[in-house]
Amino acid sequence: MRPVSSGAVDFIDVRETNLAVVLRFIRREAPCSRAEVAAGTGLNKATISNIVAELITRGIVVEVGASEERRIGRPAVMLTLDGRRFTALGLEVNVDYLSAVMVDLAERDVLTWHEPVQAAELGAEGCVVRLADLARRAMGEMARQHREVLGITIAVPGLIGTSDGEVAEAPNLGWHEFPLVDRFREQLDDSSVALSLDNDANLGAVGEYRRGALAHTQNLVYLTGEVGVGGGVIINGALMRGSSGYGGEVGHITLMQDGPLCGCGRRGCFEALVGIGSIIQQAAPDLAGSTAQPLTDLAAKVAEVARRAEAGDPRTTAALVRVGEWLGRGSAILLNLFNPQALILGGYFVTLAPWIMPPARRTLAAHTIAPNLGGCQVALSTLGFTAAARGGASSIIDAIDTARLPLPRSGSAAHR
Amino acid sequence: MRPVSSGAVDFIDVRETNLAVVLRFIRREAPCSRAEVAAGTGLNKATISNIVAELITRGIVVEVGASEERRIGRPAVMLTLDGRRFTALGLEVNVDYLSAVMVDLAERDVLTWHEPVQAAELGAEGCVVRLADLARRAMGEMARQHREVLGITIAVPGLIGTSDGEVAEAPNLGWHEFPLVDRFREQLDDSSVALSLDNDANLGAVGEYRRGALAHTQNLVYLTGEVGVGGGVIINGALMRGSSGYGGEVGHITLMQDGPLCGCGRRGCFEALVGIGSIIQQAAPDLAGSTAQPLTDLAAKVAEVARRAEAGDPRTTAALVRVGEWLGRGSAILLNLFNPQALILGGYFVTLAPWIMPPARRTLAAHTIAPNLGGCQVALSTLGFTAAARGGASSIIDAIDTARLPLPRSGSAAHR
Repeated sequence: MRPVSSGAVDFIDVRETNLAVVLRFIRREAPCSRAEVAAGTGLNKATISNIVAELITRGIVVEVGASEERRIGRPAVMLTLDGRRFTALGLEVNVDYLSAVMVDLAERDVLTWHEPVQAAELGAEGCVVRLADLARRAMGEMARQHREVLGITIAVPGLIGTSDGEVAEAPNLGWHEFPLVDRFREQLDDSSVALSLDNDANLGAVGEYRRGALAHTQNLVYLTGEVGVGGGVIINGALMRGSSGYGGEVGHITLMQDGPLCGCGRRGCFEALVGIGSIIQQAAPDLAGSTAQPLTDLAAKVAEVARRAEAGDPRTTAALVRVGEWLGRGSAILLNLFNPQALILGGYFVTLAPWIMPPARRTLAAHTIAPNLGGCQVALSTLGFTAAARGGASSIIDAIDTARLPLPRSGSAAHR
Repeated sequence: MRPVSSGAVDFIDVRETNLAVVLRFIRREAPCSRAEVAAGTGLNKATISNIVAELITRGIVVEVGASEERRIGRPAVMLTLDGRRFTALGLEVNVDYLSAVMVDLAERDVLTWHEPVQAAELGAEGCVVRLADLARRAMGEMARQHREVLGITIAVPGLIGTSDGEVAEAPNLGWHEFPLVDRFREQLDDSSVALSLDNDANLGAVGEYRRGALAHTQNLVYLTGEVGVGGGVIINGALMRGSSGYGGEVGHITLMQDGPLCGCGRRGCFEALVGIGSIIQQAAPDLAGSTAQPLTDLAAKVAEVARRAEAGDPRTTAALVRVGEWLGRGSAILLNLFNPQALILGGYFVTLAPWIMPPARRTLAAHTIAPNLGGCQVALSTLGFTAAARGGASSIIDAIDTARLPLPRSGSAAHR
């Protein structure tokens, strides 16, 4: 996560760091006693008492009575995370939808929204208006529930620039050097909430790592299956960003010399072969419309492709086999280079899995040098179109856990 | 590094860990006082005095008098690393050569040897005999100099298996499931020295990271330019291995559909397009001999290719342009996925750089999505054919620094 434009993250003191250490321990080990927290964190008992008292005052930790099984004599008072009062919001803008996922401090889902939009038609400014509206509604909902939103992360299918809060390039949205965070903050009209921005594939990988079916797999690659195809890579439990944030740009590796034209202007990119726009063009060209126009109603068109494949339409099934083969070839490059324990396919790949996965698995095995795929499990995402938004929300919780984002002092939170 | 078959690494105590912490601090900060070591490591002064005394007794640290500039009043006694007494050996076996690099504890070069062999003709057992002979000579030289060899790492161009000390597959050497470490120890007839084994590209990347012209670049990709083309990847200062050791297998990503046959049995692999065997076949087919036979006298043949290119022979130069273009295309995949700060080309790529680099840079830029290569510097290795052996030696120093490999007790070392 790249926190930007927030006064709140400028100053983090030692006490805040110790508080984060204690909070992280309780999140992992709850229910646990103060003595266990002291033993587990190395902080002394007086410091622990102090910090726990503050966490209780802030409404983040609650005492849940005694753990009778575990002790002889006077039972210890156990601590557990409450954190219902505080929430984090992940947003995603993509070619044909907006997503919003709100989680509380214990990373429980509070709300999950998914709305269709035609991002290219709306334009960048129009998207910001819709996105801010979505955020405002979600925050209003939290206010009604007496909860506070600690931060917002926005996921975008594009290259995030080195300038704070700017989308350098999002060809499938038609955005170029767009100062998303600044424009979003203006629209939101809230100067206090911490805002950050990241690539959809990166946040999707974080979502899978924190909340997916294969959560906590230490080496994991996530592939988005949208109009764009992005890669998010977790190595030893940490997101790989590359030296300037351009890591995992799998969509534009050249797979086919003189292949079909890609949105980036090159030919034969992975995305031009297996992105959902290309899939519709190959499998159901009658639905694709003019190539000069952005695709609209993607979900309906993908559903129609699936219907035709189900009915055994030969052109459709033949095209999906070709797509699957290219998906396998591109994925083999990821396996040869990253040797992950899991490759997770998201987005529309899940919808079309019955037809594209068998050929994909065949070519993947043929083009991967390590025996048995190097131990890699190939799985479909169970997070649907909310993986990136979910990862965005989780990355805020992570920032709090590592004291990069402070919790508000007691009294500043809305009270139940 | 994967330490194997060494009794010495089985037991590491707290004292050894603290000793490693102090040693690492002195390596980085020397000359420094005991008080500075205490402040920098968080260990108390009594422990520091104790450990420093032991390091001095072992001949690893020496007192170098006072630092007068830095203090008022009584000047502090300063400590610096000596470490001449202890050394680490890196060995490499490749298709046409063996390399040996010995460094002392301060990572200064003690000896650098490079010998031509025809590995495929010798066979696996023959190679082990030659490699053990090289190691024995190097260790004999150390004994004459009253130095002790703490460990040996062997670099091999192949897949290292999950079984300890086994080379799973090294197609260009003709090795398959070969228990290299066990066979090497038998030949060496020394049961005490710690032995480990790794892939040549991984160790080459470590060599570049520790000792190359762009040393300490935190995100770095190294490409070997041998008969095989391997990739070693450093991410945030650490070697990326993948979940089962198969990370960075760039040589067998498929670049060209229905391309030339590769040693692995597939077609159009990166290595089949830009490996040195393929380069000779394309640029000087009269030197290549029968494709069924392993290539011999590579260095002489590459020199002849360079001579012809220098003389402007059109077939040679045209072939080298094609090779450069494929090198750029393959490298672009690495830049798109890893977004490193440096891409370093080693081995024979360096010899042929005047002809292959201009087209390589052109296609690399054309196929990399991030502007300005995402800030990546493309450089030629300055470590020649010793990068992997050097990395192997460094990885032993690193194991000592992190207490994964203990230093011998005083008295066990040979004395000057």
